[in-house]
Amino acid sequence: MLYSKIFGKTKKDSKKYDSANATLLIKGGFIDQVMAGTYTYLTLGLRVLNKIENIVREEINTIGSEILMPSIVPQELWAKTNRLETVDVLMKTTAANKLALAKNSSEYVLSPTHEEVVTPLAQKFNLSYKDFPFALYHIQTKFRNEPRVKSGLLRGREFRMKDLYSFHTTEKNLKEYYENSKKVYLKIFQRLGIGNDTVIALASGGSFTEDYSHEFQTICETGEDTLFFVKSTGIYYNREVAPSLAPPINNDEKMLERKDVEGKGIKGVDELARFLNIPIEKTTKTMIYEADDKRIIAAAVRGGYSINEDKLRKAVKCSVLKMASPETVKKVTGAEVGYAGILNLPKEVEIYIDESVNNRLNFECGANKTNYHSININFSRDLALPKEFYDIKMAKDGDLYPETKEKYEVKKAAEVGNIFPLYTKFTEAFDYKFIDQDGKERPVYMGCYGIGPSRIMGVIVEMLHDDKGILWPEAVAPFQVHLIGLDLKDETVRSKINNIYKNLEDKNIEVLYDDREGVNAGEKFSDADLIGIPVRLVVSKRTGEKVEYKKRNEKEARISSLEEVLKLLISN
Amino acid sequence: MLYSKIFGKTKKDSKKYDSANATLLIKGGFIDQVMAGTYTYLTLGLRVLNKIENIVREEINTIGSEILMPSIVPQELWAKTNRLETVDVLMKTTAANKLALAKNSSEYVLSPTHEEVVTPLAQKFNLSYKDFPFALYHIQTKFRNEPRVKSGLLRGREFRMKDLYSFHTTEKNLKEYYENSKKVYLKIFQRLGIGNDTVIALASGGSFTEDYSHEFQTICETGEDTLFFVKSTGIYYNREVAPSLAPPINNDEKMLERKDVEGKGIKGVDELARFLNIPIEKTTKTMIYEADDKRIIAAAVRGGYSINEDKLRKAVKCSVLKMASPETVKKVTGAEVGYAGILNLPKEVEIYIDESVNNRLNFECGANKTNYHSININFSRDLALPKEFYDIKMAKDGDLYPETKEKYEVKKAAEVGNIFPLYTKFTEAFDYKFIDQDGKERPVYMGCYGIGPSRIMGVIVEMLHDDKGILWPEAVAPFQVHLIGLDLKDETVRSKINNIYKNLEDKNIEVLYDDREGVNAGEKFSDADLIGIPVRLVVSKRTGEKVEYKKRNEKEARISSLEEVLKLLISN
Repeated sequence: MLYSKIFGKTKKDSKKYDSANATLLIKGGFIDQVMAGTYTYLTLGLRVLNKIENIVREEINTIGSEILMPSIVPQELWAKTNRLETVDVLMKTTAANKLALAKNSSEYVLSPTHEEVVTPLAQKFNLSYKDFPFALYHIQTKFRNEPRVKSGLLRGREFRMKDLYSFHTTEKNLKEYYENSKKVYLKIFQRLGIGNDTVIALASGGSFTEDYSHEFQTICETGEDTLFFVKSTGIYYNREVAPSLAPPINNDEKMLERKDVEGKGIKGVDELARFLNIPIEKTTKTMIYEADDKRIIAAAVRGGYSINEDKLRKAVKCSVLKMASPETVKKVTGAEVGYAGILNLPKEVEIYIDESVNNRLNFECGANKTNYHSININFSRDLALPKEFYDIKMAKDGDLYPETKEKYEVKKAAEVGNIFPLYTKFTEAFDYKFIDQDGKERPVYMGCYGIGPSRIMGVIVEMLHDDKGILWPEAVAPFQVHLIGLDLKDETVRSKINNIYKNLEDKNIEVLYDDREGVNAGEKFSDADLIGIPVRLVVSKRTGEKVEYKKRNEKEARISSLEEVLKLLISN
Repeated sequence: MLYSKIFGKTKKDSKKYDSANATLLIKGGFIDQVMAGTYTYLTLGLRVLNKIENIVREEINTIGSEILMPSIVPQELWAKTNRLETVDVLMKTTAANKLALAKNSSEYVLSPTHEEVVTPLAQKFNLSYKDFPFALYHIQTKFRNEPRVKSGLLRGREFRMKDLYSFHTTEKNLKEYYENSKKVYLKIFQRLGIGNDTVIALASGGSFTEDYSHEFQTICETGEDTLFFVKSTGIYYNREVAPSLAPPINNDEKMLERKDVEGKGIKGVDELARFLNIPIEKTTKTMIYEADDKRIIAAAVRGGYSINEDKLRKAVKCSVLKMASPETVKKVTGAEVGYAGILNLPKEVEIYIDESVNNRLNFECGANKTNYHSININFSRDLALPKEFYDIKMAKDGDLYPETKEKYEVKKAAEVGNIFPLYTKFTEAFDYKFIDQDGKERPVYMGCYGIGPSRIMGVIVEMLHDDKGILWPEAVAPFQVHLIGLDLKDETVRSKINNIYKNLEDKNIEVLYDDREGVNAGEKFSDADLIGIPVRLVVSKRTGEKVEYKKRNEKEARISSLEEVLKLLISN
């Protein structure tokens, strides 16, 4: 392809966006920002996206059948699974103006995921056990009502997604398929050039299961996720599910006299610790929740931690957990919000205390009295040692893995895929059963498996760039060769390079040929570095009958004959 | 591909939908209806859709660059072109529930077309005359707030669209490109197998131009559009723009005495003609409009015609034309709605009379008096002959082409593409100018060019089916060969057919292999006819070492050797 004819060239301005991928992809002419979180893929960007999607397609074809489901779907389908009112990233469509409203006032869900379409679809066609297992997928544009779009292609309101759904007659068969899908996924990331940095992490299975789901995470400084790695077992946990043991603190002191201290308007544990002149670890954070609209829960963690509501929900064994209203807090604690503690709470309050609260002497907690904090609290003396301590905190750097007591290695990572065992959650909602060998109806088991091609494009750039630009892996590079012509006003040079261009294309090598006149060598070289095609060839007066060959990830160029270059390219 | 493993098999039930394409595509297992106007493409259907899109892509790549624009875009862009409040098929997105609304209450346009995205995009990159002309396109899912979804894939709320936009420095260059695009389009329809039935028709250029746009229409009994063909010139007009001359009526009578007849509550000209015992052609329909919020317009056509508001708008030379309110009608005519006529209207009313009203004796028109109709009206005697008659009626079968006075040939057709010269409508809205050779700013000219691949899939089925099923053109058939295995429990036969299957696939022939056991020959044959793959091969005990070869569009099968069959397939 001729660079002179391409739409979307490199930009001179050096505007920096909030992420390397946005900055480099926009500057390199791969994408254009239409609004925050929404992009147009220009010629170069679309080529990369298509290559990523085709690799995903080739591998997923080995375990599923491609179809294409619609984006707008009836709201009733989402009501059936109880997700219409509960999914906070859900968008719907509606008439855009009065004229449109007069013509058609119907509203539809604009799909962020397709369980609500694929489950009734499968149900229509497959009822006999003989048809199982099977799996359906599509590669499609998805929509999320994302409040914080950021990081370029990593988190947008509109993005590309491959979502695969598998159907099984037994949980065992689901598990087998699920395990195999991990191998297929790892092969995909290997082919995409990020395999060596991509790991499987345990993540939340969602509110509907005690089980884990699995995320494919690319270790990456600029990733949004935090992984907790247990070296002895080789297991990665997403922070949201990492079991955690707080590091022990120094307890070399005597019990002091309990006091209530007035500390009006103090915000946060840092300020409180300073005010009380104690380490943060001696403070206690107590939160009041309502569970399933009836039970009142007090949850306490050591200062410096936050409560992990998923862990708390599982400890409490409830389905809905929400922060108590200020009125309820006042009624229960007798104090305004901000002064709750675990002392002297009414009997109807269920108290869940994190293990980090234990093994401390002379700790602080809210006094359950407006403006007051109790200090020098000690278990057994000031309140009974609870029967059980829980793990209800969000893990943080420095924490220990409870089973082995080893310190976690904490790493930033970007999610590039995730898989969920859905079991019968959706098939039950649609009453989707199959007929077994004995003519009996039995529940269908499901799994779902996502990969975001546009997000992966962003992650690849985050992983593979230097201060000059992008370094595309060969499999997804927009072209294999960036051919730079210099001295193009010289007819001999131009005719020679045109021949080389034709020669390469005839051999099905994808070439981006920078044929621009009036652009100097330095600019062409820096454009090539920014665009990041793996191999750069330069032809000029100086190279004579030969060609200058340089890999994007190497410093040294060499002068070779075209034959040698072709050999190198074809052996790649 | 093995038919036993395919998702979406033929359906036994014989449910009929409102169109052949919906019925056959659903029954054949190509698509599944999620809701009216919204479909899932199953394995077979997606293969057809992809083939159509790839043919479109290959041809459009010769005149434009592929990109991919987003579906959700800021409302401000649509406000700039004044289309946010005026396009009645426009949808927008909004948070789907309270939780979502709390997180992000932003609303976005869900795009039915992309002038509002591509114009500012082009503007960002191309400012110098040297960069022109250029054209950008994408193939993408589009959304329309369609009130009447119908006819399967022909009219839906979500559909696939190729939309191309071209940019030019002069109107002349736009026109040249525009003319060339017609050739590219015709080649596409030729390759898609509907070229011989597809014609170019003149259609409305939209409110922003006096010019025509051009539609590509496939002549087809079940099409939604009506074309008016002028044989002597070879020109097709879409009904909405066909100039029309009403056929003359018998005037062999004397002028009778004008009378006002009471005819309370009569609805429509048919009832009126019966009531008055006159032919419908002697009645007159008069409508009152408001133009540009100030002018009052009375428009009259002969009974049996309706007013073509686009023609009227152009005759009146106004930009906004709307039906007058009942209050206005009463104020202007002195009568309730239903009794307006062209007699004795106040001077401030501008009267536009269609030519069909002329050349009649003793005609009827509303008396401008509630419940009364005037009969035996005659120009010159009862009212002045107007200075000018207009063509403001919707053409109908039987009408003449005014220039040559020949009778139109009227044909039903389905639109498969359309192209618009946009001139500077959108570039002006975005103030998109280029810098010419002399450093001066000049307006950029634009054209837009649409083709709907999913709609084309429906049109192909409408055109190419018989009572047994579909007859796909080779270029878009889901597979080239439907290989049917019979007597598969016989190991020799199964091993032979497996070899043939492998042999065909090795030669890159796309084969759908019906490998189902326990399905009888009749069912396999009728499935093959329904699915409509161009060539059917049967292998069974009876065929021995040979193969039965039959084309879908031929009745006779022949027994041939595999070598002969391969020759036939490869020569196809």
